Amino acid sequence: MSEYIEHDKDANSVGIVEKKVYTFAEPPMEMVLESGAKLGPVTLAYETCGTLNADRSNAILVLHALSGDSHVAGYYKAEDDKPGWWDNMVGPGKGIDTNKYFVICSNVIGGCMGSTGPCTINPKTVMPYGLNFPVITIGDMVDAQKALMDHLGIKKLLAVVGGSIGGMQVLEWCIRYPQMVTAAIPLASTTRHSALTIAFNEVARQAIMADPKWNNGDYYFGPKPDLGLAVARMIGHITYLSDESMRHKFGRRLQDKSDFSFNFDADFQVESYLRYQGKKFVERFDANSFLYLTKAADYYDLEIQHGNGSEVHAFSKTTAKFLVVSFTSDWLYPTYQSRSMVKAMKKNGLDVSFCEIEAKWGHDAFLLSNERLFALIKGFLERVYSESQK
Amino acid sequence: MSEYIEHDKDANSVGIVEKKVYTFAEPPMEMVLESGAKLGPVTLAYETCGTLNADRSNAILVLHALSGDSHVAGYYKAEDDKPGWWDNMVGPGKGIDTNKYFVICSNVIGGCMGSTGPCTINPKTVMPYGLNFPVITIGDMVDAQKALMDHLGIKKLLAVVGGSIGGMQVLEWCIRYPQMVTAAIPLASTTRHSALTIAFNEVARQAIMADPKWNNGDYYFGPKPDLGLAVARMIGHITYLSDESMRHKFGRRLQDKSDFSFNFDADFQVESYLRYQGKKFVERFDANSFLYLTKAADYYDLEIQHGNGSEVHAFSKTTAKFLVVSFTSDWLYPTYQSRSMVKAMKKNGLDVSFCEIEAKWGHDAFLLSNERLFALIKGFLERVYSESQK
Repeated sequence: MSEYIEHDKDANSVGIVEKKVYTFAEPPMEMVLESGAKLGPVTLAYETCGTLNADRSNAILVLHALSGDSHVAGYYKAEDDKPGWWDNMVGPGKGIDTNKYFVICSNVIGGCMGSTGPCTINPKTVMPYGLNFPVITIGDMVDAQKALMDHLGIKKLLAVVGGSIGGMQVLEWCIRYPQMVTAAIPLASTTRHSALTIAFNEVARQAIMADPKWNNGDYYFGPKPDLGLAVARMIGHITYLSDESMRHKFGRRLQDKSDFSFNFDADFQVESYLRYQGKKFVERFDANSFLYLTKAADYYDLEIQHGNGSEVHAFSKTTAKFLVVSFTSDWLYPTYQSRSMVKAMKKNGLDVSFCEIEAKWGHDAFLLSNERLFALIKGFLERVYSESQK
Repeated sequence: MSEYIEHDKDANSVGIVEKKVYTFAEPPMEMVLESGAKLGPVTLAYETCGTLNADRSNAILVLHALSGDSHVAGYYKAEDDKPGWWDNMVGPGKGIDTNKYFVICSNVIGGCMGSTGPCTINPKTVMPYGLNFPVITIGDMVDAQKALMDHLGIKKLLAVVGGSIGGMQVLEWCIRYPQMVTAAIPLASTTRHSALTIAFNEVARQAIMADPKWNNGDYYFGPKPDLGLAVARMIGHITYLSDESMRHKFGRRLQDKSDFSFNFDADFQVESYLRYQGKKFVERFDANSFLYLTKAADYYDLEIQHGNGSEVHAFSKTTAKFLVVSFTSDWLYPTYQSRSMVKAMKKNGLDVSFCEIEAKWGHDAFLLSNERLFALIKGFLERVYSESQK
């Protein structure tokens, strides 16, 4: 769900990282998805930072949000202007300290940044899948990540960490593979979307599907539905911010003019900003992936899928230690949702820390530099790591 | 801005009403707009209910919101299924009692329900204006209404009443024509849009302009930009509701199915609802009017336009008695905005009543049946009417 933040260049980074790919090599080499459909072959793009220790006990899996990718930290090339999307958190001495931990991040299936998704060539037709790509779920994303962990020889994860729909994957990991997860950090997340969040996603999908260039998902050899995707992104962007952050960031200031244009150009800074964000997004993201990933997020319902209607029951087989974090101005995944999952975890006697961080930046807050968040994550990881070594 | 609510048939209504039109008849017969552009001839569609008393002291002007029209109460024909948009408030014995008061409501200029707007024929080209229609402001809407009052021989209004951008017109009336307004009721309104509200309007406009059928506003002789306008309406619709009302109204309930479709059909009730609202809207509303009216609302800034940057100063020439009402779950025009205008009015020593009504229905609350709101408006009007007779 969340924004992909561009960070400035940082001398204190993990340095050069490599974009790797893993194509499932073990038979049957295809996944049976939650819908019942089959998908194969499956490729995951991923990145690792830091060093796996001898007993393989320091691995942390980072799970990205809607528009993120496997490039979590560092630089592909020395001359790159921008590091990975969570470079402020993942690096030497940082919240997730790559001097201590081995960090893995993979692009979700259904994505468009190297993992198998709707823009991938379907081997049966030798054409991009488009809408023939099966609808995937958060559980399917996690199953694919599990196969990657098997490939990397990681039997136990010190932690799974992620925000927004990355946080949904965190929860799903804890429920689907409890024996593999020592600790878990869902940030700015939820066990299921509210009607409001589904509504925003649905309107964004409608904006894409209303673009005639979308062509029922079959546009890979022609013009792309850029206008529809840009509108979808603009809708998303509003939901990542907050009333307060927008007042602070833009207010009613005009863009490069002293008076109204009295036409339909962008007059206000907030209008220019949204138009720019929309335009930039279409250069790097696939419209069909937007449809598939938002649908997966809307479908996710931990209570129904794992708890027979009970959030408490859903966590009954979970053993992970939790750090749950929400942000005061996040109206997409508001604090009451995090509180509800914390309550359910506690009713199962789980070791849970919860913090609502005062932040005016809305849902995006989890991706921004925040000393409080860094310290919380750093401290929590140190504790669970030292406890796991006993 | 606000939703156009369809009410059920009500035996206690003003009965049959007539859609009238007034084309400015006094020279120069054209308006000089705030932008400096000229517009003419100008026609306003309007409706009246109740009877103007002998001394013309019981006239109330009702000002509609974004998608409203002049049909405020009653029925055009006995067989009509639905009454006017505020039939629950305007009628015999109702909050605005047509046994006592003479109610006038006109469609705003820029609209598409009978008043001069972008779909009107431009006499110079004998073609619809389209984007040649000048950008209008809230002040221009009020100036046109003033001409209608002159035509009707009404020199003083007992009250001006309206919600959302209707409330902006209320404020503008009090500032532009203070000697004509005895009392004023701005509901769920603001002196200026926040960046968040501008952002939603801008994305809605972009959705319309992204539709190739919009054709730069020139679509009156071909297919209309229905898909773009539907997306715009869906965005608006979300903002008229609230997290709480959507949880209550839809939750995560599925529409006519027991399990997910695993495709991009509407699965959830909230998705079906939005798609339906989008489709219904395009049957009755003009996409260009949507652009013009949202732009007028975004431009409105009482503080800058009338107060030299000071909200307090903006009300300095106002003499009206005010009833200001906000609603707890309205996040489009939140209570803090109403409080701010109330403070500015009070600093000018004005007679102001303020009430924040507890309501979970979001911005739409001002249009829905609410005993508290009825009683407040009824009581306030009785007081100001009796005081005006002394």
